[in-house]
Amino acid sequence: MMQMTYDPDGATFQTARAAIPSINPLWRERAVARLNSLTKPLGSLGRLEEIAARLVEIREQERPRFPKKAIFTVAADHGVTDEGVSAYPKAVTPQMVLNFLTGGAAINVLSRHAGVEVVVVDIGVDGDFAEAANLVQAKVARGTRNMAREAAMSAPELNAALGVGVALADWAAQQGHAMVGTGEMGIGNTTAASAITSVLTGQPVAQVTGRGTGLDEPGLQRKVEIIERAIKVNQPQASDPLDVLRKVGGLEIAGLTGLIIGAAARRIPVVVDGFISTAAAAVACKLEPEVKSFLFPGHRSSEPGHIALLELIGDAPILDLQMRLGEGTGAALAMMVIDAAAKILDEMATFASAGVSEAS
Amino acid sequence: MMQMTYDPDGATFQTARAAIPSINPLWRERAVARLNSLTKPLGSLGRLEEIAARLVEIREQERPRFPKKAIFTVAADHGVTDEGVSAYPKAVTPQMVLNFLTGGAAINVLSRHAGVEVVVVDIGVDGDFAEAANLVQAKVARGTRNMAREAAMSAPELNAALGVGVALADWAAQQGHAMVGTGEMGIGNTTAASAITSVLTGQPVAQVTGRGTGLDEPGLQRKVEIIERAIKVNQPQASDPLDVLRKVGGLEIAGLTGLIIGAAARRIPVVVDGFISTAAAAVACKLEPEVKSFLFPGHRSSEPGHIALLELIGDAPILDLQMRLGEGTGAALAMMVIDAAAKILDEMATFASAGVSEAS
Repeated sequence: MMQMTYDPDGATFQTARAAIPSINPLWRERAVARLNSLTKPLGSLGRLEEIAARLVEIREQERPRFPKKAIFTVAADHGVTDEGVSAYPKAVTPQMVLNFLTGGAAINVLSRHAGVEVVVVDIGVDGDFAEAANLVQAKVARGTRNMAREAAMSAPELNAALGVGVALADWAAQQGHAMVGTGEMGIGNTTAASAITSVLTGQPVAQVTGRGTGLDEPGLQRKVEIIERAIKVNQPQASDPLDVLRKVGGLEIAGLTGLIIGAAARRIPVVVDGFISTAAAAVACKLEPEVKSFLFPGHRSSEPGHIALLELIGDAPILDLQMRLGEGTGAALAMMVIDAAAKILDEMATFASAGVSEAS
Repeated sequence: MMQMTYDPDGATFQTARAAIPSINPLWRERAVARLNSLTKPLGSLGRLEEIAARLVEIREQERPRFPKKAIFTVAADHGVTDEGVSAYPKAVTPQMVLNFLTGGAAINVLSRHAGVEVVVVDIGVDGDFAEAANLVQAKVARGTRNMAREAAMSAPELNAALGVGVALADWAAQQGHAMVGTGEMGIGNTTAASAITSVLTGQPVAQVTGRGTGLDEPGLQRKVEIIERAIKVNQPQASDPLDVLRKVGGLEIAGLTGLIIGAAARRIPVVVDGFISTAAAAVACKLEPEVKSFLFPGHRSSEPGHIALLELIGDAPILDLQMRLGEGTGAALAMMVIDAAAKILDEMATFASAGVSEAS
């Protein structure tokens, strides 16, 4: 569905970083003036009003609309699964990609419900897929290396994955998707996300590591030890987020970091899914703090590391439904709320137009 | 749009109370078995799975669907507005009814977004309306009496309002609405809801009374005093929820109590909006505790009395967006989540059908 160029030098990503705009406070004033003219008590729609104001700031339109929205479910494998860090076998990554392509996964159901297009991206699955209408073939490698022994990615691989993400944002803009969501699939990727979280936030591994798809207690212990070993072996530098991403991250996480940077550069609001997506967002925010203005954390995951990451990106999640599935499922549900906020701004009558008396 | 019969003896309501079914735990077992067969880690959709299981129990169907849903926005005036308890003039109640009928209010925007029909019910507005496709004319009185001086309703008025609510549920069932939401409009109705809350929960008035549509500090003080006076004058009996509803309630609140009881009697799940709707639900649950099985609290209102009421109906709200508008707006947004849960159950592939490996 789109042409992908392999960009091992990272020029695509660096160009997008440099293009991130800043927010002009004039637009918030305009949004608030309109919100206050609508037939409801001042501020009574709570977070919907705050969301609406942020959409105005991001899009620089008084009444932004989002008829087309896309969620990118970016899939990759993880070498660290060799260490037995997941309750599911690695083969589930390509199996679930096929499930996404045939429409039977949770992200398909929730995206149909929310009126959102699902774009599946093979950025690093250890498996091959026939061409399909909603599949982007952008394989950078057949999974990462085992981070318990060596860096997960080489520098060219990291740059290529970041570049894929930027290209996805560019495609979204061309297609008229004025809002995008992040999603992912990759057996082993909570291990990578916990490693990133521990390094970026400085919190102990045990505190930011959870059961992923359903580890038992010994499995969780082992996962913590493997992450600790990976950090010891690789010595990722917290002050250099791309170093962290390369050494203990994942190809899909790097792809999402690129997507987030690329979307911000194009003034496209990004609805961030759960733990793994927020790890990607945290890397983006550490690199370019202005990115925060373009992010909407979709939901609070029940993975324990998520709270620390949410603090890092600096906003409260929209939903709290104790979900921990990934794929973009939390983003899909949150998009319905965000779109509702945009429609409030656009479709509600004003006190003047409806002939309703104002407060005394 | 529907014929309303005036039922001052309360037979309609008593018949519905007696018809509320109990939940058969077999249906939960079936729901859980199906949820666990779907292509996702066990329990990873969190509250969506719990919601889905409850829908199965309520509907007694393995894969319940909700293509048609309605929110009843029930409107009435309150005699207690004579005491100056609201930031808005009483004339706003009929003005907002007209706004609902022309589609410009928040509830219209959010219901359109959620694919939900809005039915506006004049159960006690001090104003007259021309016939309209989405208006139910069921005026019991032109507002309540001033509860700071006397009982808000007579017994026949209360019974008539409860009967209107039951008739709305019956109509919903006939129309194929398999899910309903509660909504309301009535200047002064947070005063009534706070009075009900204080009496039913035993908490001091000051603790369960908020600023409603936007009172200032002296206005809030006055509102607390008026509610305290209304309770002193009327001596509502906490052990008799209908006595409380009649003396310090409202016609729209009574209508919603009837709607909730009627919907439960017909196995229609009810999505409860904010503070005022939850006061109606609390009365229903005090009368018939089995009603709780049919309720989904839609959101957490920012009105301070709402938390105490939520404890009384015994479930956590689905959304927390700091909203305090009423009309059914929180219910409309929550219905999108509840409908998503139903679709998960119905539309997702199973491990077997999708050829995905299960956890080890």
